[in-house]
Amino acid sequence: MKKVRVFAPASIANMGCGFDVIGLALDEVGDILEITASEGDGLTITNETDVPLPTDIEKNVITPVVRKFLQIVDKKAQIDVTICQKIYPGSGIGSSAASSAAAAYGMNELFGCPLTDEQVVLCAMEGENLASGGYHADNAAPAVMGGIVLIRGYEPLDIIQMPVPGNFYCAVTHPHIVVNTKEARDILPKEVPLHDAVSQWGNVGGLVAGLYSGNIGLVGRAMKDVIAEPYRKHFIPGFDNLRSKLLSAGALAMNISGSGPSVFALTDRHDVAQRAGWIMREHFDKLEVQCEVYVVKVSNKGTKLCGVSI
Amino acid sequence: MKKVRVFAPASIANMGCGFDVIGLALDEVGDILEITASEGDGLTITNETDVPLPTDIEKNVITPVVRKFLQIVDKKAQIDVTICQKIYPGSGIGSSAASSAAAAYGMNELFGCPLTDEQVVLCAMEGENLASGGYHADNAAPAVMGGIVLIRGYEPLDIIQMPVPGNFYCAVTHPHIVVNTKEARDILPKEVPLHDAVSQWGNVGGLVAGLYSGNIGLVGRAMKDVIAEPYRKHFIPGFDNLRSKLLSAGALAMNISGSGPSVFALTDRHDVAQRAGWIMREHFDKLEVQCEVYVVKVSNKGTKLCGVSI
Repeated sequence: MKKVRVFAPASIANMGCGFDVIGLALDEVGDILEITASEGDGLTITNETDVPLPTDIEKNVITPVVRKFLQIVDKKAQIDVTICQKIYPGSGIGSSAASSAAAAYGMNELFGCPLTDEQVVLCAMEGENLASGGYHADNAAPAVMGGIVLIRGYEPLDIIQMPVPGNFYCAVTHPHIVVNTKEARDILPKEVPLHDAVSQWGNVGGLVAGLYSGNIGLVGRAMKDVIAEPYRKHFIPGFDNLRSKLLSAGALAMNISGSGPSVFALTDRHDVAQRAGWIMREHFDKLEVQCEVYVVKVSNKGTKLCGVSI
Repeated sequence: MKKVRVFAPASIANMGCGFDVIGLALDEVGDILEITASEGDGLTITNETDVPLPTDIEKNVITPVVRKFLQIVDKKAQIDVTICQKIYPGSGIGSSAASSAAAAYGMNELFGCPLTDEQVVLCAMEGENLASGGYHADNAAPAVMGGIVLIRGYEPLDIIQMPVPGNFYCAVTHPHIVVNTKEARDILPKEVPLHDAVSQWGNVGGLVAGLYSGNIGLVGRAMKDVIAEPYRKHFIPGFDNLRSKLLSAGALAMNISGSGPSVFALTDRHDVAQRAGWIMREHFDKLEVQCEVYVVKVSNKGTKLCGVSI
């Protein structure tokens, strides 16, 4: 029997303009799984957290990830997964991606690392597909690899790790509003005005240029989303007002995390990140909406072992 | 009386995926204007080349550029422009932008450089608007500033100069087919599928990342245009066939230059660029389409004085 304990971080998809193609990993916040592999052929998933999760393993994102891995390496095994720590599902900070990344990474470690990082991401994307009905890597890739990543293309999967500014902090809040990922995708139009698409890719270019050149001001002014935000911001009470308060407090930008309802603000100053966190809490308190607030660094670490026994 | 002689380079807009937001300047090929400023209030334009140009100055792109400059600096003057060298209009390598850039830059020099580079580009965009009915900077900005530029946004104009790989060659051919810029814009749909727009901005991000990281392979695979090319390539005889010949010969990518009909291939090898030029000539010769072929370096220089007398 082999056993690993794996941490996979929360992540923020889109970063404003980078809808479906950019994501970043957070420090500290994330999922922890323990996975054991032994002789046999089966899968069990035990939830030891107080976060409610489906008891039917066919509905747990871990299941298709484990199966995809075993299919790629063409092996059979008895896999027993214990969920020790879990980001609340529906939070918009990559809850399904964290479980999927931890499962894919842990399986790879248990079997002697036969897969590349990109293949581990491909396995994790099976979990994303179960959660939202689409093969997206903008949470799964940063969760696995850490840092800020660009998904250049999906056919084939082409993941670019971009430089993370030295001091780059993220204040993120999860207001307790239920926004289903699939619903948040369905609200978007199937076609977008060419003019808006051009604005969006100008900003994507600017964001990438800002990260590579360390131009934090450029990063901030490029983080505009004219495609999804106009539709999705209505899920989030007082969105525009919250943004103007955060920008006044010195944040570089505030955007929806993935399909929401979480929102996040980035800054290169720790004190501004702390203040952004207070502003977020105060904003939702006033609206009598419960929320969690995290103030963390953007992480370069990605998924990692936090314990192993063989 | 003051007089300047100004060279402004040809340029290539879009670079594949960067429709309306990315452009690059070429070495050697370009327009030369002589501009004199003296006391008075008027404008003359004399064409000393054998390239046919409108004789009505209201139809020459130089006119709105000169007027915009004088309006910004709030001055009156007698301006006499002589066109000494001219890229063929309709070639798709920034003919109108070269004249506009030379006029804007030359005026700024004549009046003691009161304008920033971005303001010079703004003046040059007046010429682009006359030529194509839109304020685009994806030829004007590289023509003025040189190198490879990103127009992050237009409101306000936000131009980012990106690193040019050390050895970066361009083979470009202008087949003698008339494609009016306005017509080439009108053929594009007003709305595009969200799925295609996402592919495009993934590629824009990849292209920018490739330029900053010096990853030439990434630059090549990111130079895909799923938005304009599917419509515009039908203007160019044997487009797909020419591309497959150029890629087989080692070119990184082949794309339409701006709205066409010119096409260009990029490479980091001089011998491949030479070979690409021969392939282009042979391709259009076989189709009995006359063409010019240029094989030049991507230039960092932009518009520059090539003579001044005061």
